[in-house]
Amino acid sequence: MPNQLFTSPYPIRFAHTDMAGIVYYPNYFNMFQSVVEDWFDHWLGIRYATLIAERKVALPSVRAACDFLCPTRIGDILDLSVILRRTGRSSITIGIEGAVSGKPALRGEVVLVTLSLTTFKAIEIPPDIAGRLKAYQQLTPLVGQLESGHD
Amino acid sequence: MPNQLFTSPYPIRFAHTDMAGIVYYPNYFNMFQSVVEDWFDHWLGIRYATLIAERKVALPSVRAACDFLCPTRIGDILDLSVILRRTGRSSITIGIEGAVSGKPALRGEVVLVTLSLTTFKAIEIPPDIAGRLKAYQQLTPLVGQLESGHD
Amino acid sequence: MPNQLFTSPYPIRFAHTDMAGIVYYPNYFNMFQSVVEDWFDHWLGIRYATLIAERKVALPSVRAACDFLCPTRIGDILDLSVILRRTGRSSITIGIEGAVSGKPALRGEVVLVTLSLTTFKAIEIPPDIAGRLKAYQQLTPLVGQLESGHD
Amino acid sequence: MPNQLFTSPYPIRFAHTDMAGIVYYPNYFNMFQSVVEDWFDHWLGIRYATLIAERKVALPSVRAACDFLCPTRIGDILDLSVILRRTGRSSITIGIEGAVSGKPALRGEVVLVTLSLTTFKAIEIPPDIAGRLKAYQQLTPLVGQLESGHD
Repeated sequence: MPNQLFTSPYPIRFAHTDMAGIVYYPNYFNMFQSVVEDWFDHWLGIRYATLIAERKVALPSVRAACDFLCPTRIGDILDLSVILRRTGRSSITIGIEGAVSGKPALRGEVVLVTLSLTTFKAIEIPPDIAGRLKAYQQLTPLVGQLESGHD
Repeated sequence: MPNQLFTSPYPIRFAHTDMAGIVYYPNYFNMFQSVVEDWFDHWLGIRYATLIAERKVALPSVRAACDFLCPTRIGDILDLSVILRRTGRSSITIGIEGAVSGKPALRGEVVLVTLSLTTFKAIEIPPDIAGRLKAYQQLTPLVGQLESGHD
Repeated sequence: MPNQLFTSPYPIRFAHTDMAGIVYYPNYFNMFQSVVEDWFDHWLGIRYATLIAERKVALPSVRAACDFLCPTRIGDILDLSVILRRTGRSSITIGIEGAVSGKPALRGEVVLVTLSLTTFKAIEIPPDIAGRLKAYQQLTPLVGQLESGHD
Repeated sequence: MPNQLFTSPYPIRFAHTDMAGIVYYPNYFNMFQSVVEDWFDHWLGIRYATLIAERKVALPSVRAACDFLCPTRIGDILDLSVILRRTGRSSITIGIEGAVSGKPALRGEVVLVTLSLTTFKAIEIPPDIAGRLKAYQQLTPLVGQLESGHD
């Protein structure tokens, strides 16, 4: 288990831009979805595709929010870091910090809920996921340091 | 000037859905952008396309947030209502209430900033827009009633 | 049954644009999907949402193509017309003509296949749809006239 | 100069799917845009972001087409290969072959035009790009072999 926050780079592409020449903000939420998938696959070690397609557990968002601190542009590499804020019976609250070359670009939050695609009802976070989330949460001291910098 | 909140219907389409069979949430933010444009065009009477393409004033979002209260599906009509929460020197804070057949589906917020596309700096809200926003804000008592219902 | 091609207007929005200031082309294919849905709902009289969500018949595309004749911009209204080129056992080939204020903007083609969502196999076009398609095809002479203008 | 076609992998994500459980086809055209950008950056050695943002040369598509040979799903890795079919004074015709684990998934074509963002008119392909395209075209014999397999 790597002893640091999960961070993954997302290149800003032509498709993300709008006529103001910057990233059109709903596209950032697409990237939030990507970093959640990548975090599951590459840190938690739980394959997101298998979770939804085979185990029939989806992770819809019941809340999403973001402060856009500065615009990003084609050619930028947006580094997104995942901070696990808290877990409930069936909810997972994630902070997402975005930066370009180390300069903060956005600060987001997404609340996911574990949902059975069979019953379409919220279910308790499956034990394997809960265990891995707990491991990730032990990185929290690092998070405190990270966040004390900009709060 | 119509004496009620601006509300506009957005049909949920196949394109909005994901493999869980419901609307993929970033698409709601696209609809938020649509309702802002429609509100400018049809209530404020300031053509959004002219504003950006000719007057070179853009309205990027510096914040967007949404609570997704219940999922929506293909064939639903999502009614979005615009609530003007406050205006600053260059910022416009908007609440967006979404409902399907009168049942609340989402509650969002977007903070827009008036930006010059010539200098790429925030500018004071142009007087014609400020005047129309003031007129819209006089609908606030109605908003209070609406919001007291769910806060 | 109206005796003319189905045409529906789609407003070009900020969300459709890219940093070149024009519509980013994949967004046109989203509009193609919209006009097919609207054609089903409003001309064929077969509710697209019901077809897929209740009858479990999807209409995925096995081919899509488009010539972009001239760029479109925010504030334009893109009128899309549906031309039924041919139907096979399980395929429906549609031409889509796009114009802004009568000036041709694009010419597209989409080939849909009727697919059972239960078996995930192509199925014969259901009789009610086949019947309505036949009715629409009787508008073909009109189509010939329309198309002779630009071929 | 690597002596083979440029191929790049694109993971199929939740965001690409629709309620039929497969990739919603307009998203493939987004991936076509990505592979063109990556081909410019990583094979041609001409930075796409610089080209558009600094040299003010855009590459809008005047035509896009695709046959979708078999559906793709979340968790698939779609490998896209770029085939340079021909170049004109200001146009670049590209074939795009898509495969998942070696199995063909799609076959597309995009025609790009070099456009000055200053005059918004088509311009001759800049010499540095033309030179690199010529180098890439020398891979054509390989292409012939590739294509003879499925034509």
